[in-house]
Amino acid sequence: MTITTVGLDADDTLWHNETIFRLTQARFLDLLTDHDNDAIAARLAEVERRNLRLYGYGVKGFTLSMIETAMELCDGDPPPRALREILAAGREMLAHPVETLPGVAETLADLAERYRLVLITKGDLMDQERKLAASGLGELFSGVEIVSEKDRLTYDRAFTRHGTGADQAVMAGNSMKSDVLPALEAGAFAVHIPYHVTWAHELADAPDNHPRFALLDTIAALPAWIDGLPDR
Amino acid sequence: MTITTVGLDADDTLWHNETIFRLTQARFLDLLTDHDNDAIAARLAEVERRNLRLYGYGVKGFTLSMIETAMELCDGDPPPRALREILAAGREMLAHPVETLPGVAETLADLAERYRLVLITKGDLMDQERKLAASGLGELFSGVEIVSEKDRLTYDRAFTRHGTGADQAVMAGNSMKSDVLPALEAGAFAVHIPYHVTWAHELADAPDNHPRFALLDTIAALPAWIDGLPDR
Repeated sequence: MTITTVGLDADDTLWHNETIFRLTQARFLDLLTDHDNDAIAARLAEVERRNLRLYGYGVKGFTLSMIETAMELCDGDPPPRALREILAAGREMLAHPVETLPGVAETLADLAERYRLVLITKGDLMDQERKLAASGLGELFSGVEIVSEKDRLTYDRAFTRHGTGADQAVMAGNSMKSDVLPALEAGAFAVHIPYHVTWAHELADAPDNHPRFALLDTIAALPAWIDGLPDR
Repeated sequence: MTITTVGLDADDTLWHNETIFRLTQARFLDLLTDHDNDAIAARLAEVERRNLRLYGYGVKGFTLSMIETAMELCDGDPPPRALREILAAGREMLAHPVETLPGVAETLADLAERYRLVLITKGDLMDQERKLAASGLGELFSGVEIVSEKDRLTYDRAFTRHGTGADQAVMAGNSMKSDVLPALEAGAFAVHIPYHVTWAHELADAPDNHPRFALLDTIAALPAWIDGLPDR
């Protein structure tokens, strides 16, 4: 048995994303000058968590949560300029240029010669499609799955649909919680490639001595790691 | 050659949707008491159209467009109560009970015995998954495709992935523009089942004497229509 398929997360694995959220959040903190930054950030995190079940992941839900946070902190009457800026910030995020991470283009071109590549990502449908198109990487993927949540079943389905099943697949991504743990549960190999910042909601502990798990510093090390897996 | 696969649109084909948008819009018009209803509705339509490229389809984009419209009409300073109500209305839409249209459950159960059923819908990922689960119809579908746009390629892909190609498939839905015309272009049969209200953005002319097109009053007439197609 051998590896046929490589699944890749998108945001913060192939291109910068969380940094853009953080920059927008910093801008948001500056808008509510009457409030302490830590208090605003804590309230925003709480509102986001509360809304996740209804809004799901992505920029539109984040924008609505910023507006709701501003309303709550300002007793229902935030400065008009703040609202204008939040709406503009949301639109700018959705039009932001896509900046791929170092080594991504070369590594994916290399992997695509030997494996089927599948993009598996959360977020807003249209926004993720736009970013994939703008990245110039679209042609390298045999399949694209934009999903509302990443659990065992998500990986089971994606690797059956676009490959030869999870046990012949490797999933690589920056989120321990969304990319690594559920892919391992599905029976795939999983590689954690941390990004320098992680959204609190995506934090989780690494698996303990799992035989199909690896931690890599950079995506450039992925092909050699897959090549080094023992034939079973 | 014979029909193997039936594609179905979701909103306003399987369950009520546009009526919920209209009720929310009526509530929105009432919030901006200083403005004429027609002027508000026209501005909202304009803002929605402008944002479609960035926001795509669905409740979250609609909510953001209502906020933006309120900002624009009130010179950047809308009544705080209006904003609170808009946010609440958006959340209520996302939690709204799913009410299937008459005949849907029986018709789909009947069709599912003889054809593979594929749900093909636009909208917010998480919201459409929630509605499908709440409808109780989920088990009847062999495939579910939530897409950012419905064009020829969408139907080509969906009917290849979940069936035996577009030329052995029928697509049924309430939107001439999204469900009928691009499905015909892909080579499928297409059935228009109008809902009593249609979002302006989804209006289009019927095809002229197209051999693979039909207009039906109700989804209950769909199985007999498919059965009556001549074997080719």
